[in-house]
Amino acid sequence: MKRAIVTGATGFIGRFAVRALLARGYEVHALSRTASGGEQGVHSHRVDLIAGHDVERVLKDVQATHLLHLAWCAEPPSYWISPENLKWVQASLGLLDRFWETGGQRVVAAGTCAEYDWSYGYCVENVTPTNPTSLYGVSKDCAQRLQGAYCVQRGLSSAWGRVFHLYGPGEHSARLVPTLIAGLLQGQAVPCSHGNQIRDYLHVSDVASAFAALLDSEVQGPVNIGSGRPLLLRNLIGKVAEIIGRDDLVRLGALPSPEHEPHVLIASTERLEKEVSWKPAFEIDQGIADTVARWRENQRPR
Amino acid sequence: MKRAIVTGATGFIGRFAVRALLARGYEVHALSRTASGGEQGVHSHRVDLIAGHDVERVLKDVQATHLLHLAWCAEPPSYWISPENLKWVQASLGLLDRFWETGGQRVVAAGTCAEYDWSYGYCVENVTPTNPTSLYGVSKDCAQRLQGAYCVQRGLSSAWGRVFHLYGPGEHSARLVPTLIAGLLQGQAVPCSHGNQIRDYLHVSDVASAFAALLDSEVQGPVNIGSGRPLLLRNLIGKVAEIIGRDDLVRLGALPSPEHEPHVLIASTERLEKEVSWKPAFEIDQGIADTVARWRENQRPR
Repeated sequence: MKRAIVTGATGFIGRFAVRALLARGYEVHALSRTASGGEQGVHSHRVDLIAGHDVERVLKDVQATHLLHLAWCAEPPSYWISPENLKWVQASLGLLDRFWETGGQRVVAAGTCAEYDWSYGYCVENVTPTNPTSLYGVSKDCAQRLQGAYCVQRGLSSAWGRVFHLYGPGEHSARLVPTLIAGLLQGQAVPCSHGNQIRDYLHVSDVASAFAALLDSEVQGPVNIGSGRPLLLRNLIGKVAEIIGRDDLVRLGALPSPEHEPHVLIASTERLEKEVSWKPAFEIDQGIADTVARWRENQRPR
Repeated sequence: MKRAIVTGATGFIGRFAVRALLARGYEVHALSRTASGGEQGVHSHRVDLIAGHDVERVLKDVQATHLLHLAWCAEPPSYWISPENLKWVQASLGLLDRFWETGGQRVVAAGTCAEYDWSYGYCVENVTPTNPTSLYGVSKDCAQRLQGAYCVQRGLSSAWGRVFHLYGPGEHSARLVPTLIAGLLQGQAVPCSHGNQIRDYLHVSDVASAFAALLDSEVQGPVNIGSGRPLLLRNLIGKVAEIIGRDDLVRLGALPSPEHEPHVLIASTERLEKEVSWKPAFEIDQGIADTVARWRENQRPR
């Protein structure tokens, strides 16, 4: 029996990851601060990883074979610079140690494209150098290095999924796609940057399914989690506006683009496709259509 | 009033660092698991940084302006691969956070030449890449990156002293110089490696005095703590044997040299000399003579 602990199980990726692991036949133990959700067939545990009180007890009780560690501070935009990042490094190392002590066999944790040196644009695992500039990026990069070295020493199987851009149901309202959908549905003009950035966007359920596939594999080390399809940001914006039927409300160039923002930031997905043998279910058009449809459902008075 | 906390205060470097800071006019609070020592004028606190129980209370009580963080797992040779390294990363990050919360202004922590990519041989801060291969090296490298990024975010003044090779009174008996002294004084043949390695050796009291000078400066980031004088290992061995008068007992080439050992591993000391304005008190000959003399003193029946 494969028994997985998922941290951050009620988060944006976590909710989908729990379902993806159930579908793969895992007994799933969902850890979160709230322990709400109550997905059918899921064992929920209320655990505050930062305070640390119940971590040892729950890990002893569960005796998991697999660990999917998604929890981290993620409130935009403060997570980029929040000193909380250090607490998440500490919590992640403690969790890893407890997981090993209780007989764990394989761990996968969530990394980020912010670990890479963005001046390279195209990010290839174990080739493109890491050179994070934010406290968030440094913290994730160090957590990766420490997890890797620790697991080699302990003989634990370990991988690290570097998430690129994502979108989908449940995304934080301060992010691009929700801001667009909310504004356009309300008939408001939505100011955007120039939109010439090239990015890699993946639907959150695909991100979660890639994590489940990675956990279920024996692939070691960093693996990018992306679509492998470069997308012009103004095309993404255009797709959202087209589906809602309000192209007239998009104001490209009305916002300055963030300083130090790279022109190109895209993922090599060779490891994910060839070694993990995984492919996305959503093309971008379907993915955006799905996201807008779910948004409309949730807005409908019940 | 400059009020400094020193962790690992009863350790090899710590004992000398406490004196060096007293000499610079600091009020010194010595933290250690044992709280023994009782150096005149030093405030001793019994704290287990790994268990973490008393850290918050002591830091609140002391309200230090300066932190010299020397504590780490250091038992040779296991510290290179010990999973304990992860606990020291966690403890160091927690300590740093507590130090900031209680009004701390400047922190210096002990790093290591093991952070560097040893294939470069000559190690220059912010030039020679880091590329640690041991769990110890990865842990120290990550602690440095995290401390650096955190302190920038918090506005804390921060430096990181990368210790190269050191020797002197109180060194662990399993290390080269103590092994040599003990063997030669007992009239035993001492097997050594070929001795053609080129290294940078500094007397422990100089290492400690460099740390005190670094803490007392406003220099930021990594600073090598070394002599800047390349030394052929067989010459170091020869000096010890000469002082004891037993060159005949040294067996160069009797031990294999460790795999992956670099031929050259030496420190650039430009930052230490020019920016910190620090120079060693001991030349290697005096330093070895001092070490042998103290060893003989301690062996004398009392």
